[in-house]
Amino acid sequence: MKTSTRREKLLKNLESHGVNALLVATPENRRYLSGFSGSAGFLLLGPEHNQIVADGRYWAQCADQCPDLELVKFRLEEHKSLIECAAQQVKGDSGVLGVEGRQLVVSDFQALQRALPEGWSVQLIDDAVEQIRQCKDEDELELMRKAAQVADRAFRLALKSLKAGIQERDFCLELEYQMQKLGARKPAFDSIVASGPNGAFPHAGVTDRIINKHELITVDFGAYREGYNSDITRTIWLGQLNERNRLIYQSVRDAQQRAVDAVKPGKTCKEIDAVARQSLIDAGLGEYFSHGLGHGIGLAVHELPGVRSTSEVVLEPGMVITIEPGVYIPGETGCRIEDSVLVTSDGCEKITRSGYQELDQTHPLEAVGA
Amino acid sequence: MKTSTRREKLLKNLESHGVNALLVATPENRRYLSGFSGSAGFLLLGPEHNQIVADGRYWAQCADQCPDLELVKFRLEEHKSLIECAAQQVKGDSGVLGVEGRQLVVSDFQALQRALPEGWSVQLIDDAVEQIRQCKDEDELELMRKAAQVADRAFRLALKSLKAGIQERDFCLELEYQMQKLGARKPAFDSIVASGPNGAFPHAGVTDRIINKHELITVDFGAYREGYNSDITRTIWLGQLNERNRLIYQSVRDAQQRAVDAVKPGKTCKEIDAVARQSLIDAGLGEYFSHGLGHGIGLAVHELPGVRSTSEVVLEPGMVITIEPGVYIPGETGCRIEDSVLVTSDGCEKITRSGYQELDQTHPLEAVGA
Repeated sequence: MKTSTRREKLLKNLESHGVNALLVATPENRRYLSGFSGSAGFLLLGPEHNQIVADGRYWAQCADQCPDLELVKFRLEEHKSLIECAAQQVKGDSGVLGVEGRQLVVSDFQALQRALPEGWSVQLIDDAVEQIRQCKDEDELELMRKAAQVADRAFRLALKSLKAGIQERDFCLELEYQMQKLGARKPAFDSIVASGPNGAFPHAGVTDRIINKHELITVDFGAYREGYNSDITRTIWLGQLNERNRLIYQSVRDAQQRAVDAVKPGKTCKEIDAVARQSLIDAGLGEYFSHGLGHGIGLAVHELPGVRSTSEVVLEPGMVITIEPGVYIPGETGCRIEDSVLVTSDGCEKITRSGYQELDQTHPLEAVGA
Repeated sequence: MKTSTRREKLLKNLESHGVNALLVATPENRRYLSGFSGSAGFLLLGPEHNQIVADGRYWAQCADQCPDLELVKFRLEEHKSLIECAAQQVKGDSGVLGVEGRQLVVSDFQALQRALPEGWSVQLIDDAVEQIRQCKDEDELELMRKAAQVADRAFRLALKSLKAGIQERDFCLELEYQMQKLGARKPAFDSIVASGPNGAFPHAGVTDRIINKHELITVDFGAYREGYNSDITRTIWLGQLNERNRLIYQSVRDAQQRAVDAVKPGKTCKEIDAVARQSLIDAGLGEYFSHGLGHGIGLAVHELPGVRSTSEVVLEPGMVITIEPGVYIPGETGCRIEDSVLVTSDGCEKITRSGYQELDQTHPLEAVGA
């Protein structure tokens, strides 16, 4: 989809927010609405505004990536800061400028207020762009499928080096290296390889702990490629699980699959969350599922919609969300299984596609194919 | 140095700012003052305040890393957000709370103002902690030397795979992989491998361009390890340079060395900047040096002091700054050489130590040792 089409959608949102223009500061929103992939710059968008404000490092890039926007050249000699330069580009004697309150820092906000023409005021707006970004267009889906594919393929390749006695960080590095070999610019986030008791922390990270046989290992990772992210978790093991871990693993598997099966347009996010939650409660593990079920994913790793027990958001075709129930037992172990799924016209499609280790398999390679 | 000693220094700064307590939101400041390495949480510090506010993911970690701070447990059931929980911890009926305006986003700032007790007001403070962080203590220097060593060693190892015909991104990946093999948690920033005309962009990043013989290649990279960053740039080549590139390279080398030689306590940052700038002007390349000479480095890749033509900051022993003059000729080529140096009692010490390719060397491995 052309970025101009996305900007047209935004204009309708702005009207309902009662602002004359939006100052876009969030990097993902900037890229979504303009195609500009640089790391600094502001967009000024509205019925009368169609500008990108950038410093000299990015002028050539702006001309190349967003030729249909008016490029405002920030020069340190003329303006104290980029945001003051942007403030002075508003057109007309008066109006209301929307700004993204969760992105803009206080210093910039105050500088903006000082630099705006007298007739202009500022209004905080959150999610005007994020709401549009919830439903992905075809161009985005192609990039998201590729980011997911890179993660899936890298996982298979990295698993070849997984054996008892290596450190969590060794396997993590191998996985991240393979993703980048396959075209990821970088990992989508700090990967997690959490073995044994480390798995009890939902955001465990990675340590120098030695991976042993017969213990659960949570591996949560994703690829960042051409602006888009993938996110997948597999819990795996080497050797054989004891009865307790088999119960935990199979319960999380079931909860995840049931939630995935429940995804379709018209359902609310909290209904999907409830499916996984009830499944774990029925297995006697409900108290150990201590976070929401998932989140939207795209240009940001975490974006709208939140898939939580309190979310009334109704699923629509084109949304991409993660489904990631987990069980975390302090001091003992943990398990999480996650896929990113695309909501389709009548259900959903997994875009992360790595296999799941089966209880009788003694190495995860058996599940994902050699 | 104990974090409690750092906090004592801060209290003196707070007094001069006229605030009763500081809400620390900047991750690097949080880590510096508490030892807490988690990714979320607020410190509340002052003569009457000594708290860390964190959510359930981090309670065990706080108890372990900062047992001398009072842990305030944020629970979503009791407080709407982490910052509102923090706001309610201020002690006493009235006072002034300092907040970091360059870090705090507007939404959080407004929530903070709403949640503070009536007698309290808010004052923006920037750099209260950053100023203390400028001069590194021995514990920090040990970590910074290690982060630098990882980068140096990884460079040497990665160079073994450098040959004409590979892509920039191949070499970049090899370099980042080696840093992590050697103990970096991740690259300190998005590495730059900019060959031929790509070198003309100071922040080139990395592309799929094929590296050729006889062209300049700017390689800017660093390691992030145990909270601290290193930052180094070498410009290298395969084969032989033409006269024009020899002049550019040697001029940047000379400018960088002269600036390093000029570093000592008592000099201002702008004086050091001027040494490199004048050196390039004398070589007829002054117009192509389009950025400041360098920056402080430590817990953040870019921190105080800025080493620019406008900076009046006086160098002190313990400061660690980068010295990185460059020449960028649009459409043609670019060259930058950078070291991180520690200001000592009578001069400075390079903490990045990779060798520099000499004009008669046809592969950079000859410079850094096999």
